[in-house]
Amino acid sequence: MLTITRDHELDPVLRPVELVERKGIGHPDTLCDRAAEEVSIVLSRYYREHFGAILHHNTDKVLLVGGRAHAAFGHGEVLEPIYLLLSGRATGIADGQHVPVGPLALRHTETWLRETLPHLRLPGDIILDYRIKPSSPDLVALFRRSGAPLANDTSFAVAYSPLSELEQIVLRLEHELNTPALKGRYPQIGEDIKVMGVREGEAIHLTLSVAFVARNTPDMDTYLDVKHALTRLCGEWAAEFTRREIHVAINTADLVDEGCVYLTATGTSAEAGDDGEVGRGNRANGLITPMRPMTLEAAAGKNPVSHVGKVYQVFARRIVDRTRAEIPEIRAAACAMLSRIGSPITEPQSVAIRVDSDLADAALRDPIARIVREVLDDWETVRDGFLERRWGLY
Amino acid sequence: MLTITRDHELDPVLRPVELVERKGIGHPDTLCDRAAEEVSIVLSRYYREHFGAILHHNTDKVLLVGGRAHAAFGHGEVLEPIYLLLSGRATGIADGQHVPVGPLALRHTETWLRETLPHLRLPGDIILDYRIKPSSPDLVALFRRSGAPLANDTSFAVAYSPLSELEQIVLRLEHELNTPALKGRYPQIGEDIKVMGVREGEAIHLTLSVAFVARNTPDMDTYLDVKHALTRLCGEWAAEFTRREIHVAINTADLVDEGCVYLTATGTSAEAGDDGEVGRGNRANGLITPMRPMTLEAAAGKNPVSHVGKVYQVFARRIVDRTRAEIPEIRAAACAMLSRIGSPITEPQSVAIRVDSDLADAALRDPIARIVREVLDDWETVRDGFLERRWGLY
Amino acid sequence: MLTITRDHELDPVLRPVELVERKGIGHPDTLCDRAAEEVSIVLSRYYREHFGAILHHNTDKVLLVGGRAHAAFGHGEVLEPIYLLLSGRATGIADGQHVPVGPLALRHTETWLRETLPHLRLPGDIILDYRIKPSSPDLVALFRRSGAPLANDTSFAVAYSPLSELEQIVLRLEHELNTPALKGRYPQIGEDIKVMGVREGEAIHLTLSVAFVARNTPDMDTYLDVKHALTRLCGEWAAEFTRREIHVAINTADLVDEGCVYLTATGTSAEAGDDGEVGRGNRANGLITPMRPMTLEAAAGKNPVSHVGKVYQVFARRIVDRTRAEIPEIRAAACAMLSRIGSPITEPQSVAIRVDSDLADAALRDPIARIVREVLDDWETVRDGFLERRWGLY
Amino acid sequence: MLTITRDHELDPVLRPVELVERKGIGHPDTLCDRAAEEVSIVLSRYYREHFGAILHHNTDKVLLVGGRAHAAFGHGEVLEPIYLLLSGRATGIADGQHVPVGPLALRHTETWLRETLPHLRLPGDIILDYRIKPSSPDLVALFRRSGAPLANDTSFAVAYSPLSELEQIVLRLEHELNTPALKGRYPQIGEDIKVMGVREGEAIHLTLSVAFVARNTPDMDTYLDVKHALTRLCGEWAAEFTRREIHVAINTADLVDEGCVYLTATGTSAEAGDDGEVGRGNRANGLITPMRPMTLEAAAGKNPVSHVGKVYQVFARRIVDRTRAEIPEIRAAACAMLSRIGSPITEPQSVAIRVDSDLADAALRDPIARIVREVLDDWETVRDGFLERRWGLY
Repeated sequence: MLTITRDHELDPVLRPVELVERKGIGHPDTLCDRAAEEVSIVLSRYYREHFGAILHHNTDKVLLVGGRAHAAFGHGEVLEPIYLLLSGRATGIADGQHVPVGPLALRHTETWLRETLPHLRLPGDIILDYRIKPSSPDLVALFRRSGAPLANDTSFAVAYSPLSELEQIVLRLEHELNTPALKGRYPQIGEDIKVMGVREGEAIHLTLSVAFVARNTPDMDTYLDVKHALTRLCGEWAAEFTRREIHVAINTADLVDEGCVYLTATGTSAEAGDDGEVGRGNRANGLITPMRPMTLEAAAGKNPVSHVGKVYQVFARRIVDRTRAEIPEIRAAACAMLSRIGSPITEPQSVAIRVDSDLADAALRDPIARIVREVLDDWETVRDGFLERRWGLY
Repeated sequence: MLTITRDHELDPVLRPVELVERKGIGHPDTLCDRAAEEVSIVLSRYYREHFGAILHHNTDKVLLVGGRAHAAFGHGEVLEPIYLLLSGRATGIADGQHVPVGPLALRHTETWLRETLPHLRLPGDIILDYRIKPSSPDLVALFRRSGAPLANDTSFAVAYSPLSELEQIVLRLEHELNTPALKGRYPQIGEDIKVMGVREGEAIHLTLSVAFVARNTPDMDTYLDVKHALTRLCGEWAAEFTRREIHVAINTADLVDEGCVYLTATGTSAEAGDDGEVGRGNRANGLITPMRPMTLEAAAGKNPVSHVGKVYQVFARRIVDRTRAEIPEIRAAACAMLSRIGSPITEPQSVAIRVDSDLADAALRDPIARIVREVLDDWETVRDGFLERRWGLY
Repeated sequence: MLTITRDHELDPVLRPVELVERKGIGHPDTLCDRAAEEVSIVLSRYYREHFGAILHHNTDKVLLVGGRAHAAFGHGEVLEPIYLLLSGRATGIADGQHVPVGPLALRHTETWLRETLPHLRLPGDIILDYRIKPSSPDLVALFRRSGAPLANDTSFAVAYSPLSELEQIVLRLEHELNTPALKGRYPQIGEDIKVMGVREGEAIHLTLSVAFVARNTPDMDTYLDVKHALTRLCGEWAAEFTRREIHVAINTADLVDEGCVYLTATGTSAEAGDDGEVGRGNRANGLITPMRPMTLEAAAGKNPVSHVGKVYQVFARRIVDRTRAEIPEIRAAACAMLSRIGSPITEPQSVAIRVDSDLADAALRDPIARIVREVLDDWETVRDGFLERRWGLY
Repeated sequence: MLTITRDHELDPVLRPVELVERKGIGHPDTLCDRAAEEVSIVLSRYYREHFGAILHHNTDKVLLVGGRAHAAFGHGEVLEPIYLLLSGRATGIADGQHVPVGPLALRHTETWLRETLPHLRLPGDIILDYRIKPSSPDLVALFRRSGAPLANDTSFAVAYSPLSELEQIVLRLEHELNTPALKGRYPQIGEDIKVMGVREGEAIHLTLSVAFVARNTPDMDTYLDVKHALTRLCGEWAAEFTRREIHVAINTADLVDEGCVYLTATGTSAEAGDDGEVGRGNRANGLITPMRPMTLEAAAGKNPVSHVGKVYQVFARRIVDRTRAEIPEIRAAACAMLSRIGSPITEPQSVAIRVDSDLADAALRDPIARIVREVLDDWETVRDGFLERRWGLY
């Protein structure tokens, strides 16, 4: 069931207050999302290679328990390791062949952690554990059936386009602060970066929390210099998106006089107490946008074949993106999709599209219906894209 | 900053499709929410009793790893226990006196589990573990300062009133199915009950997943009889809220001919593989409502003093409830609140209220402003209410 | 191969120094032994009841990690729970029926803990966890074969009789201090009691470590009074066995002037740091006797069918006990048995008996050979006795 | 108190049956001993470097829970990782400076595991966890006092010299089979090698259990060839020590016709079910010798300063070694030492020496007394030797 309605208030800029947040790649919640998704990727690849199909798994529950650390200018070390517990279900046997789920998951987790958190010492600073249990063997056949997979649940997904100014700014800032180039220039910057953007009327307030790497920050002057430089840079990056007034503040809880600033040993607050879980941070478009429709479904870690809580997020996003790209008269679009449990994922229970456009209904319906159909029919591209990390999910 | 705007589309019934879900008290995600909140309650009471103030803690991260079980008509048993890991931070020492955080948390968790899941055998069917770590001792003084606490974060909360027909139905169904009275009549019904409501135009489809207790269900006839009776009861309960057409379906994945129906040993799917985490299920009003504004903040387990991700949920709810109660001309109201980190919780960064009303602006502003002020000033009632479980949170 | 040799120095009293130790029932190592053995008992009973035979298991690895506690006169509480991890292998499936190994083990452990450590609060003061893994299903048939089981290993066992004076005293003291009668009279006494006996020539020094229960010990006077009374009692008990000079000292590390004495919340030092493992404490006769031959085999937790590291301990003990009972001219006897892996347990590789007797060889050989044969042939009594805790093992 | 007695039966060769065993470096129990001792070493070095003294710790409790693996000719992999839990107590803070006990322990454990078990894939094939808890801070001063440390316990140690033929053979075989040279020649040989030696009269039976590395063993022919070559080599090595008749048998449980032989993925049986604990395997001289006096004290992991359960093992060994080296007329010697809790470790409660010699008493007493005194006075060499792994301990 496809419904198309008009909505001239899709752009949140029409509201007096707008709130947008992003938890960066080194934030405990984002680390959990990543951990869950990476386990899904490594298992999917293994299943495909060994059994010719991605087999059943859902590894979308991960808990990170923060450690204890000491950080001071020029020196930082973890005193008590972080604890990361992977959990979920995964096919453990197929065709009489056992799958080394635990070793695969643990090995792969360590690999991406090394890249993502270069200041975390491995082994030693984190304990990797898992309690991924075997799925029902009955599911093997189900995952090998030909044709579109059957939706595993009644699930809901949303997407919208374009991003608002503020949304683009928040995404961009975290991205820029985590580029290797910037890290080369400012080795003081850790990976745990949180960007909170609030627009009140015409003023944009960007509040960043940036973990500094103690070892690379010899003294308060360096700290303040870098913070100052970043403040300036963030202002410049933000200005590329807006003409509104921009205020940037970094690490507002610093007490400079007391020498109490945001230093870490590892570049992430997970080292000292901040816990994390999957699905508690960014939505599938990388943002937390409480004024926009959002789904609670955590896409990360779910199986990319039949879990509509994951697959439909990308379907919805592709629909709005193509809608705007192919029908320029549509200024903004939002898509809400609902699956029907047990039906092929290509046959949703409802697809509700809202558009901001002056086009006549007649001019909208057919092209949008065609796009929806094509996106659904192209489900294999979506599925395979997860294995290549082509769709951002957190 | 208080803003009041008009919105005549607050009622989701105006949309062609509406989706509402509730994960019942025995669902793994809800069990995690409960576990987190109960640890906060038992600690808060202990702190108050021993130190005269609720001290710092945030125990809002819990992971439940499902077990393995066998269930057949007339017989059920857990083969591999569920694993529940409590995590977070809590003040471990104050006034030189140590707090038995672990024993308190574990003991209390077992107590409420016994009540909530009477079919779970304790000890044996679940392993309770914890990794709650000590908070910074510096926070003790902060939690003892007089006056309104300082907001610990920039956080966002939403509430709306009234609930739509569908929302009321979904809440009511799960509630009724978990009353002792009904359990007395139908001892076959477990505690893990999920209600999914979809309204498509004028038709309401209620899909329930109800875990049956194998031990109390001797055969297929009993199972089908009870399922049939529940289907009828749910239809009757729903009909009290709506004149729309109602369709009820329970345990749609049953394969009756193959003898494959939803039986459990313990009344919860946690026994066999379903994992859970805090904040992955119901929002603070007990519902998942993807078409409504929602916050991702998990209220459960956060400290009831300064954690605005918890406190503001109740502030916002009280504001809309009183607004509608005291100004009958307001048909519907929604409130979005944003805290200002470091400021007293009574001084939010913004309170944005949308109302559906024909009253003139002048007639709205003052009474609403007064209500907001009074709700904020009454913060101690909100704080203390958490300790008495007065505010539903999940 | 039976060898009988003469040894007139079997009695350790012939040596100038003798050392004997017993770790009481509440000592962390003994708790681990008990935990291992109780899991074996509960599984053995379950297997026998459900499958008609005791199936394969070895649960002889347990780790206890001490907690953290606070104890002062009149008050004691656990601040951080003890952690007990059960481990090993056990048959998880037979005749297509799954065995609830984890729930059985956890439930039963809690049951005996409640009895054995009445001052430990359950739940709360201890976390029970397990990592018992499934045995190979191939072993099911092996454990059901008729006739004498096949020895699982080449293993060595020793026993001797009679106990020396000092050995008897050490056993008796711990026993008396842990009787309900004495606990009724002196509720100050905990369960963690260690008795170390040293005989130097004609002087016997008994050094006891007795955990006091803080809650039941209101002040230093009570502590000293009870300690004094126990010292006197121990002297009296010891005097029943010897005419040697007896010196008793209890809790020698007490610093009375500094108020620093041996108080506990729970009656066991496991509450505050003392860790334990299986096989690190008493040998199968309940004693640690470094001057006597000892085996390192931990009997506790091993399967009572084919594990010669367990079964042979009792065989050897029965042989020496009957030898002395039936041949009064034998003043002392020791037996060392060696199994032959893969052979029936009734066909040892060697049985070496040493006796202190003036009887002629001819008068010794036949009766002893007969006793050995009868003890071996009576293997089912030995096996079944484990399930009834008839043979002390630690 | 020094006592010297004569004993002409010190050599076990005088007994009709002799039993000697060694669990090789890759055996689960030996891995636990090593793990415990290595944590002690890395902590001791850290303490000395940062605080000028080895501070209090006892990390002599470790549990290894075996994994699950698949091995077939030419291929092996771990399906479920091994789990290694380090436990004990260690000083966590001194001079206001925190000690990264967990990271140090985990990092170092991984380092030596990589060397010792080259076929174990790290990370992935093993989960390293720890529950080492902080020692009492009061102990810091105690460990810094000058002069000989005070004995922490009443503890017993034994040593004897020389090793019997059989003892030497058992030690040598395991050693040879684990040399890099032999591994270069036979990459099929894993690290988990158990040698059991039984001498019955004049016949020596050597039964070896040798884990083969599946990946390096393409087929049954290779397996049998290597087994055959090893059998021959072992016979040759053994013949260097004895003129008795030698029988060597390797992997006697092999069922060659059924293709069922001892293959592993990692070279250790820990991969598939064999659990381990500290103190359950070799005594401090590397052997299990049930016919000899043995102490149950696990030396591995104990602090090398004041833990007489560790230190006295080396004292006793040095005493017998020097006694035989310096007094050639002594054919064999054994030493049993008992500490006195609270007294300097240089002042034992008793030192009992037995010698097999024809020398007159007068000729024995003075030189032995001098040796004992010198060994005790040289306690710092013993202490420091532990940090350099100079004394074999398991």
